[in-house]
Parts: sequence; C-alpha cells; structure tokens
Amino acid sequence: MPFAAAVFADLARIRQNAPLVVNITNNVVTNATANALLALGASPAMTHHPADAAELAALAGALVCNMGTPGGENIEAMLAAGGAANAGGVPVVFDPVAAGVTSRRREVAGRMLETVRLAAVRGNASEILALAGEAALSKGADSQHASREAAPAAVALARSLGCTVCVSGEVDVVTDGERVVELAGGHAMMTRVTGLGCTATAFVGAFLAVNPDYFAATCHAMAVMAAAGRLAAAGVAGPGSLAVRFLDVVYSLTEAEIAAGARVSA
Amino acid sequence: MPFAAAVFADLARIRQNAPLVVNITNNVVTNATANALLALGASPAMTHHPADAAELAALAGALVCNMGTPGGENIEAMLAAGGAANAGGVPVVFDPVAAGVTSRRREVAGRMLETVRLAAVRGNASEILALAGEAALSKGADSQHASREAAPAAVALARSLGCTVCVSGEVDVVTDGERVVELAGGHAMMTRVTGLGCTATAFVGAFLAVNPDYFAATCHAMAVMAAAGRLAAAGVAGPGSLAVRFLDVVYSLTEAEIAAGARVSA
Amino acid sequence: MPFAAAVFADLARIRQNAPLVVNITNNVVTNATANALLALGASPAMTHHPADAAELAALAGALVCNMGTPGGENIEAMLAAGGAANAGGVPVVFDPVAAGVTSRRREVAGRMLETVRLAAVRGNASEILALAGEAALSKGADSQHASREAAPAAVALARSLGCTVCVSGEVDVVTDGERVVELAGGHAMMTRVTGLGCTATAFVGAFLAVNPDYFAATCHAMAVMAAAGRLAAAGVAGPGSLAVRFLDVVYSLTEAEIAAGARVSA
Repeated sequence: MPFAAAVFADLARIRQNAPLVVNITNNVVTNATANALLALGASPAMTHHPADAAELAALAGALVCNMGTPGGENIEAMLAAGGAANAGGVPVVFDPVAAGVTSRRREVAGRMLETVRLAAVRGNASEILALAGEAALSKGADSQHASREAAPAAVALARSLGCTVCVSGEVDVVTDGERVVELAGGHAMMTRVTGLGCTATAFVGAFLAVNPDYFAATCHAMAVMAAAGRLAAAGVAGPGSLAVRFLDVVYSLTEAEIAAGARVSA
Repeated sequence: MPFAAAVFADLARIRQNAPLVVNITNNVVTNATANALLALGASPAMTHHPADAAELAALAGALVCNMGTPGGENIEAMLAAGGAANAGGVPVVFDPVAAGVTSRRREVAGRMLETVRLAAVRGNASEILALAGEAALSKGADSQHASREAAPAAVALARSLGCTVCVSGEVDVVTDGERVVELAGGHAMMTRVTGLGCTATAFVGAFLAVNPDYFAATCHAMAVMAAAGRLAAAGVAGPGSLAVRFLDVVYSLTEAEIAAGARVSA
Repeated sequence: MPFAAAVFADLARIRQNAPLVVNITNNVVTNATANALLALGASPAMTHHPADAAELAALAGALVCNMGTPGGENIEAMLAAGGAANAGGVPVVFDPVAAGVTSRRREVAGRMLETVRLAAVRGNASEILALAGEAALSKGADSQHASREAAPAAVALARSLGCTVCVSGEVDVVTDGERVVELAGGHAMMTRVTGLGCTATAFVGAFLAVNPDYFAATCHAMAVMAAAGRLAAAGVAGPGSLAVRFLDVVYSLTEAEIAAGARVSA
C-alpha cells in the first residue's frame, strides 16, 4: 500500500471508531489538544487528578503523557495513568517537554522512563538528546538543534526503551531502533503556534489506538501533521489564522492532501 | 411574549448589566468559557482557589460549577463556592462532566448534589442518567445516549433536587420536574469543538443572573446556544472556524436570529 | 528617534533574539499568552511548579508574574520565580489581576510587592488603585474606573516601589514616578476578548528583555498592543475574529502600522 493510502486508512479508522484518547497534559495546551483530537475524529478526555487519570487510562484506546507544566498533581496523575495503561495493555506516548532544562524536568522524565513502558516518545531534538543522556541546548521548550542531529540519540533511545522515537522538526525523524524514516512537510510558521508539538504527540496517541504497529502509527500521525500544517499555512496571514485553519484542514483531510503534503523517505 | 422575544429580553439584560458570572471550571475550557461569556455580554471571573472562590461567589450574579477536570484544589474550590453562593442567595448551575465514568467523578458529583442547593444542572444524556442513578454508557465525556432517552431521568432528578435540569444533545430537553420543553437547533459540528457543552452551562449561569425564573432562564440560554451554533456553522470550513464564528455570532445575536435558529416545543 | 521608530527597534530586537520570557500565569490565559509571545517573536515558557519556575526564571530574559487564578501551587511558583529572577538580575513584571477583590488576592499581591523587586507593574485602574492602598470598585477582574483616575495612585506606587507602573484602559497611563506618558489606540472590542490585559503584561516582559530602560520598554510594549489591537479590530465581525487577527497582525507588525495605530503624549 502506498504511504498516503496507509496513513489515510488509519485516519479513516479514527474517524470511524472515535477512539478514547486520554491526555494528562500541560495546562497550556489542554484546549488546543482536545480540539485537535476532535477535529481528527478521536474522542479526547483530559484530567489531572491521579485516581481519575488511572481509571480513565484503563478505559482508553491510548494514553498521552505530556510533562510541559510539571506541577505536583498533574505529574502524579501522569505516572498513575501510565501505570494503569501498562496494566491494561493501553499504548502510551510520552512528550518530554523541555526535558533537561531544569532539575524538576530531568527528575520527571527519569521517573517516566523508569516506571512506564512506552509505545512511543515524541520530542524535539533537544528533548530527545536530553532523554538519551546527551548534552543539549534548549531555550525553554524550543530546540537549539536540528532534528537530524538527534537521529543517533533517537536510535539509541528507541533501542534502550524498546519503543518508537520521533524527533520532530523541519524534518521529522522516526525510528524504532532498526528502521529510520524521515518525513518532510509542514511549514516554518507552525513553530509560531504554541502546542503544535503537543498536538503531534496527541495525534500519535490517536494513531496508536487504531494501529498496533506503533512505528507505522507514529509515522502516519506525523504525516497528518505535516500535510495539514502545510495546507493550513498556505497563504495564511499569520499564526492566529494558521491555528484555526489547521483544525479545519484536519477535519476534512483527504488522502490526496496527505499524498501532496507529506513526503516520506526511508 | 413570543419565545424569541423572551430570550432576547434576557440577552438584552445581560448586555446591559454585565452580571458577574463566577466559574469554577475545568482547565480545558477556562479560556473558551471566559471568551464566550464576554461575547454574550457578561463579566466572567475564574478561579480555582477555595477561599478566593467562596469570596468571589458571594459577589456574583451566578455561580457556574463544572467538574470536568476533578483535581484536588479546584473541586474544593467548587464546593466552597457552592456553599458561599447558597448562603448569599446566588443561583448555582452545575455541569457534571463525565459523571459516572470514574469513582472520582461519582464521588465529586455526589458531594455536589448533597451539599449545594442547585438552580440548574446541564449535562448530556449519559451524565444526567448517571446523576439520576441509572446505568449509562459514556466514552470519556461523550454521551452514548440520545437526549430524549434521558428525559424521564431528568424529570426525576429535577423533582428530587428541586431544580431545573437540561439534557443537551441534538435536541435539548429542559424540565423543572413538571414542565418538559424540547429545543431544537444547533449543528452536529458543534460536537467537534471542545467545551461547547461547558459554554452552554456558563450561558445558563449568565441567564440565571438576570432571570429569577430558572426554568425560563435555562431554556433561554439553550436557545441562544442553538441559534448561535446553527448560524455560526452555516457554510463553515470546519470546527476551527466554527469556534471563532460562534463568538462573533453571539456578540451580535439579534432577536430575528434567535427566532430563526432555535425551535421550541412544549 | 521618533516614538514609532523606537518601538520598532525594540520589536526588531525581540524578533531577532527571541528572548526567553518565563510566565507564571493564570490558567485562563496560558495558551493565549504563549501564542501572543510567539507571534511577537519571543520564546515563551510556562510553568506552575515552584522549583521548576525558579530554575527557568534564572535562565530568562524576563519573568512575567500574573496572579489571575491564585491557586496554592502557582502562587508559590510565582514567588519562587520572582526571588530567582531578582537574584539573577532578570527583570520582573507583575499583573495584579483583580487585586483588592478578595482577601486571597490582597494577600498574594502584598506578598509579591514585599518580597519581589519589580521592573514594572501593569494593571487596570481598579487594580492599581487597590495596590496603592486606595478604595477601588471592581466587578471581578473588570475595572470600574477610567485609567486616568488611577494616574496619581500609579505615580505614588511607582515611587514607593521604584518601578514603572502602567494603568491600561481606553487610554494607557505609564509612569516611573517622575515621567507620565499617555498612550491612545486600541479598540473597545478588545475588552470582549479574555486575557488581552494579560497579553499586554507579557508583552511588557518581552520588551523588558531587550531594553534596559524599563520605562521605555513598557511604553513600547503598550504601543504594540494599541497599534495591533486597533488594526486587528478594523472591520472585524466580533471578538472571536479579533483574537485571531490580533495574532496575525502582531506577527507582521510594521513600523508604519505602529506609527498609525498608537498615539503617545508626554
């Protein structure tokens, strides 16, 4: 099956089944993430209470864990939900926002990697370098490295965790430790909309819920991001309009638009 | 007075008086709820600190309590604010998001119903069934039942609580335990924008603040939602644009638009 | 240098250097603030965990402290970050949302003024009157006073704190205790979009990060708000569209647009 057809087959399954995607995420992107998952066709649920999170995660098609605002309660909720998801065989994707930038974030990322079995990790180059234990430069949550610089670290991390790792950037690098794929597409203005990286992670969650091949699911989710972002940015006046059009485009994204907007290279 | 004229009379009072509507709500919709109340003409205030919430609630025209993300602090704030509102004669509307789905949500909803005297409850069919103690199917926060299925439960709940209950859905059912009204309007795409149910609850709050007939106030708020949603969705490219246009439409909604967009049947 | 040229020189520095602006803010505006700072060209980071906040603040070009939803954890984070910023010579701007309205807010504002050395304060007239210890009328977070009414209080507050104070409103008043400048521009519909006041404070933060003359930096930030708000509101259908266009306009704001949209009077 051609790549765009495989992406669209998963997207059609999401639209058909509306999988429950439970998100324990930062308080910057809760609304944007829920709206993006609804536009995609999934059924999002958000919480930051530990027991509530664990119980919801056990019911989910996938769990999205994002440490962007690492407060006390929401990080406990993230870890509790991760444990419940593991116990129930629910795939977990982790977004290590600004990992390595502060002690708190290093500690939280460390606890997550040690205690939760992950299906996928998605971060920018600085975050993946930091998770892999390498020196990385970040400005807050913004990477100071190109994604390809982090490809070797991503491969090493994927092998040590036994999961798929995605380094997103101008080019996205996706690896399961053996295969390495690059995806191009998207638009530079996407970095001027907060939380589109978090949206990418949530989309990975939705695709994990419908495709048991987590490497393929991650590639497919990133292809939807790239195609929708490129299409939404075309001729747009600025990042305010881009954020709105992104949701509109995702809502009605076609196989032809995926084929035109995302380029994959093995 | 014809229905649309009665709705518009309340809306005009909100625009004239800008009642303070205090919201203890989930962290997904804080921004969207505040923007919707501002577009309507009300003066929103949001908090999640218990003492702050109680003091604000005592000053309010109405209190909106929403348990969508049932964290420790914000639920204590919700209960503290509910008590202060009751003590001060401030009407309270409750949104039991995903009630029945987890133990935490059952516990929170139970505490709310036991300790706070409510003017109105607004939920989807699954949530109202769960509050009424009946078996209900939910997928996270999304109902798996049509609103009419929950009409008998809504009537029973309205009688036992002595308040108005609204079951929202493709058709909204509003009852005070004696009267039962159905409202049609809106648009299916509204379910693809997160938090429009929460917005409906906040609008009920704003109408409670200007109309002491809580059954009428609830019907009027839902009519504004239905009319504005239908108008905003007309010809729209997707849910991103719908959310933006919804605010624009609410801001300038006319009596004629209400008459055209919301249909009521006794 | 003409005023608009000086404003644009700072804006160009923000776009060039993308200073890290750390925000400890309320949970209503996290997303809107991050998007506004990204549209401006800055690099925002948001958190509500005390140790994380302190460590991020020490790395920042400026720190933005906003007490809009004064919860336990985020207020501790605000104070911890303020201390770290002071220790590292990082300028701090404070937004005393609804100061004076509740005991909790009076207590938080008092702790902030006592323990953190501020570069700037931005609030509406009621908030500045309350900080200065004068009687003020608020409806929740909305001022019941015109900004000029609070000008004497702003001058007194600026002198006692040794910082710049901005009273925003239909006309913005900016003072360092000696100089007093008025800025006109903006649009009345801006009050129907939640958090544009918080955005103004965040913009002050971004300008503090690139201009060591904090009085000038504050004037320049408010000029960008006024010019962008006026331009974004021109011909707009309502507050939903205004919020979107505001980001688009900020993203591409030119010196000529600043000159046309913000009027300054000494």
